[in-house]
This record gives sequence, C-alpha cells and structure tokens, in this order.
Amino acid sequence: MRIIVTGANGFVGRLLVGRLARQGHEIVAIDHLIEADCGIEAIAGSIADPVILARAFAGGCDAVVHLATVPGGAAEADSASARRINIDATIALSEAAAEAGRRPRFILASSIAVFGANLPATVDDDTPLRPLLVYGAHKAMIEQWLATLSRRDALDALSLRLPGIVARPAGPSGMKSAFMSDVFHALRADAPFTSPVAADATMWLMSVDTVVAALVHALTLDLALPADRAVTLPALRLRMDELVTTISRRTGIDPARVRYAPDPDLQAAFGAYPALVTARGDALGFHHDGSVDRLVASALATITSQDSVK
Amino acid sequence: MRIIVTGANGFVGRLLVGRLARQGHEIVAIDHLIEADCGIEAIAGSIADPVILARAFAGGCDAVVHLATVPGGAAEADSASARRINIDATIALSEAAAEAGRRPRFILASSIAVFGANLPATVDDDTPLRPLLVYGAHKAMIEQWLATLSRRDALDALSLRLPGIVARPAGPSGMKSAFMSDVFHALRADAPFTSPVAADATMWLMSVDTVVAALVHALTLDLALPADRAVTLPALRLRMDELVTTISRRTGIDPARVRYAPDPDLQAAFGAYPALVTARGDALGFHHDGSVDRLVASALATITSQDSVK
Repeated sequence: MRIIVTGANGFVGRLLVGRLARQGHEIVAIDHLIEADCGIEAIAGSIADPVILARAFAGGCDAVVHLATVPGGAAEADSASARRINIDATIALSEAAAEAGRRPRFILASSIAVFGANLPATVDDDTPLRPLLVYGAHKAMIEQWLATLSRRDALDALSLRLPGIVARPAGPSGMKSAFMSDVFHALRADAPFTSPVAADATMWLMSVDTVVAALVHALTLDLALPADRAVTLPALRLRMDELVTTISRRTGIDPARVRYAPDPDLQAAFGAYPALVTARGDALGFHHDGSVDRLVASALATITSQDSVK
Repeated sequence: MRIIVTGANGFVGRLLVGRLARQGHEIVAIDHLIEADCGIEAIAGSIADPVILARAFAGGCDAVVHLATVPGGAAEADSASARRINIDATIALSEAAAEAGRRPRFILASSIAVFGANLPATVDDDTPLRPLLVYGAHKAMIEQWLATLSRRDALDALSLRLPGIVARPAGPSGMKSAFMSDVFHALRADAPFTSPVAADATMWLMSVDTVVAALVHALTLDLALPADRAVTLPALRLRMDELVTTISRRTGIDPARVRYAPDPDLQAAFGAYPALVTARGDALGFHHDGSVDRLVASALATITSQDSVK
C-alpha cells in the first residue's frame, strides 16, 4: 500500500513509519522537519501548504494516517492557528486523499478529549461527545466530517480516540497531559517529580508501542465499521500512584521522589477518568496493554530505544 | 439588546431585522449588499473579513443571529469556499462575539440537513447526526463547536435546525431544495411547474414568518437548554401533492399545472422525510405553522409583501 503519514516525525509517527516500512509498504512521510530514510519518501513542510499536499498525493494514495495536530495546550493558547491545522488542513488532506485514491482508508488520531470532563460513572460507545477543550472540539468536528465523507463513499475513514500515550520524549510537547510521560523520565533519572494530579487520580493510558499496533491494525481492518466511523481505543485505567509504584519497581528508584501537588484544573481534565467500556473497539480487534506492568515495561523500553538513537 | 445579524439581507434576515428593530433592539446588520435603514447599522461585507467583524462587534454584543451560510447546492459545488464561510468565518464570528459580549446568546441557523438521508421511521431528539451533504456536515460540526463554547461559558449558544422554509423569493438561491418555494411562485403566476419529487414525497416545512418567530423567541429564551445546544424546530410534515392542492385552492390556479418528474437524488434528499417528533423544541416553546392551510397562507402573504417592496 502507498500510505501517507502526517506528523511522521513525532514520537508515534517515527515508530509507525518504521514499522510500516519494514512491512514493505510505500510510505510518504510528512512533517515540518524530516529526513529521508531508506524506502521512505520524506516531505518536509506543513500540511496546511497545498504544494506539500499535491506532492504527497501525486503518486496516488491507498491510505492516510493523520497524526499531525495542534494539541491541547497549544490549541488553547492559539485557537485560530490550531483551527488552521486541526480543521482546515485536515479537511484539505481528506479531500486530497479522496481525489488521489479509490476510497482510501483514512485513519485519524482522534482523542478521548472528545468526551470532555464531568464524565458519567462509565464511559462507553454511547457516551455523548461533549468536549471542553478547543482540541477536543476540533477532533469531534473532524470525526463528523470524516464520517460524512465515508457515507459519500469518498473515503473509508476510521477515527481512533487515543488515550494518554506514554511515554512521550522529554521536553515541551504542547500537551497539557505531558506529566503522564514526564513521571517516567523523572523516575528513570532519579529526579524529583511533582505530580500535578493526586495519588488517586485515574487516567486512561496506553504505551506508544500499543498505539502503533492499533494504527497498523486500523489500516487493514476489514470488519464493518460503526456509522460514526469512530472508535474509542481500549485503554488501561490506572491510578497515578499505581503508575508511580510500578515505574519505581522497574527502575529501582524510590517512589518517594514523587510528591503530589494537585492542580485543580489538570486534576479535573486528566485525573478523573471513570470506568471505560470499549465494546466496539474490542470487537474490532483493538487491545490495551494488558496490565500496568506491561504498559510500564513497554513505555520504558521505548524511552531506552529513543535514547540509543540520539 | 445589541444584536448582530449576519445574512441580514437574505429573505429570512430582512424580515427578522425589521421585526427586531420594531421591538426597539439595536441591530447591526451584516451582508454582502445591504443598505442602512432607520435605526439599523448596516455593514456591507463578508463575515470572512476580520475588518468587518471588528466593526460589527466594536460596540459590544448582547446576541448574534447567524444566518449567513453557503447552502447545500453551492457547498457541493465548491466545498472549500463553503468551508471558509460555514466553518472558518463562523468560528471567527463566535470568538468575536465571546470577546465582545458577556456570554452572549448566539443563535445558529442550523438545518435538518444534519440528519442526512435514509432516516429512521421517526426522527426525534435522539436521532444521530449523519449528514450526507457538505452543508449538513458543516452545520453539525459548528453545532459541536458552539456547544463547546457554551460549556466553556464563552457563549450561550442555541442551534436551531431549520426545516424547508417557504417561500423563498424566486430566482437562484444555491439551495437544492428551491423547488419547495418555486412551486408557490409557479402556481401564483399560473405557470407550468415540474416537481422534481413525487406527488407522495414528504417534506418538513415551515413558513418564513414562523421561522422568524422562532429566531426571535430563541433570542430571549430563558429555559434550561439541552447539553448539545441544538434544537430541531417543530415542522409540518407535508406531502408534495397536499402542498400543491392547498396552494391551488388559495390561488385559484389549476393544480394540473404541476406535473411530477421525480429526480431520484432530490427525491432521496428532500422527498423522504419521515415522522418528526420534536419534544425538546416543543418544551422550549417553539411552534410549527399549525396546518398546511396556515402555512400556505403565510407563505403566500410573504410573497405578496415581497412583491410590494419591489
């Protein structure tokens, strides 16, 4: 398959592109900064640039994995810029894909941010989308757009609602949820860490390896897709102290390096996730990490391999 | 109240602006071509122009009625231009309103196009939004955006899903549903008319007078609004031949002037509306025209008054 990947130089994108290339797919990798790699066509630029889109789709399109986005914190800071990427450029990308391919599969990295806050005791496939963040609203809007194009047989879209992904590389990410990854980096480096959510905060998490597996699976999934073309990915629901204890055990670092100073806004937005039932995602063959131990092992292994690349 | 009205020179906008001005409101009326009228501040230009928005909101904002849109047929013909008005300019308008006012009421003229085709036997407030037209997708996306801004206490939005409105003025409108109005003009003029939907096609209809009443009502509605900030307006469900017979009786023109040559696409899109239950809209005090006779009388009266203005 000829697969166009946006945000290809992000931490999920790099792993995904590598895996797809090894599977023998023809990959067109777009990102602001990206270097050509064996067998991968790299295009450096913005998806908001029509010239970049024209180049990417010139050779046709069997599938798109759309990872590029202006995430939560950055979108709050500049809603208009976020809209140009998350809405305008995404719509242009979807239309370019529809034109270049024959009803190509289009995978959107959507987000659990579509659900908003003040969630019911259990979130399932019938929970209404009531985003609070600009980012979550953008994702919900684009889910609707891609479902419409799918009903029109222009695309064959599937929006995957990603939970918190660990562990992102250290450093600024524009993500308000960065603390979920930063705690890994701190406990590996034996550095003190202040958690902005309480010890009993609950989060939905997935390792980057498992999210890459989900994206690969979504590309070739051959079952009937739901009418709204959206699936909430299965995720482990973990307490913050459970995450800390498990990372500590694996790294041999004292969990007392972590102190808790909950920020009310972050606690409400990222530390109050209720039970999650993902019947649709399960039936479509998506999986979470299995256990907190496996999730932590997988996340730590990713950090190690990122370090070795540097 | 200082009320900003977009699309103010459209056939709904003109009636609305007149009514609001007579009620003593301060009106800022925006449209591509618009003339100042007593007590109305007219701004000629596009809502896609930030200078126009800055002028409109400079004096503050208590409420917005957003009628400007690129409608169904025009949006199908040029999806990118439609997006710039229906999405980008609408988002910019909503943000300008939030900045200029204190949680201003924001009324969106949404559309039953959000429901799409292949509808269930009854459409009610729980019917999922599955648009097929670009126009319907845009409206569903903006409903989500405005609900998000309302959850953030930036706006106090209400999207009204308008049914087919009769009778629009004769002439090109960019609406695929123009035939619903054109049949009025033909039967008044004793001209032959070919209906693109079958005699037993069913439509949801409302007179322009009743939709203006709904917009005025929505501006001051003081009841708890639904979480998605959207209401499907009550509408009469009428058969095409029932409409023809009633217009004929009132105009004294032979209904045989109308022949039926259904176009499969138009029939599917506009002639297959099932039963409509609008519990939310009813509870919020919205009304339909009461009877086919009243709807036709009201629509014909509007045409007469439009003629007298020319």
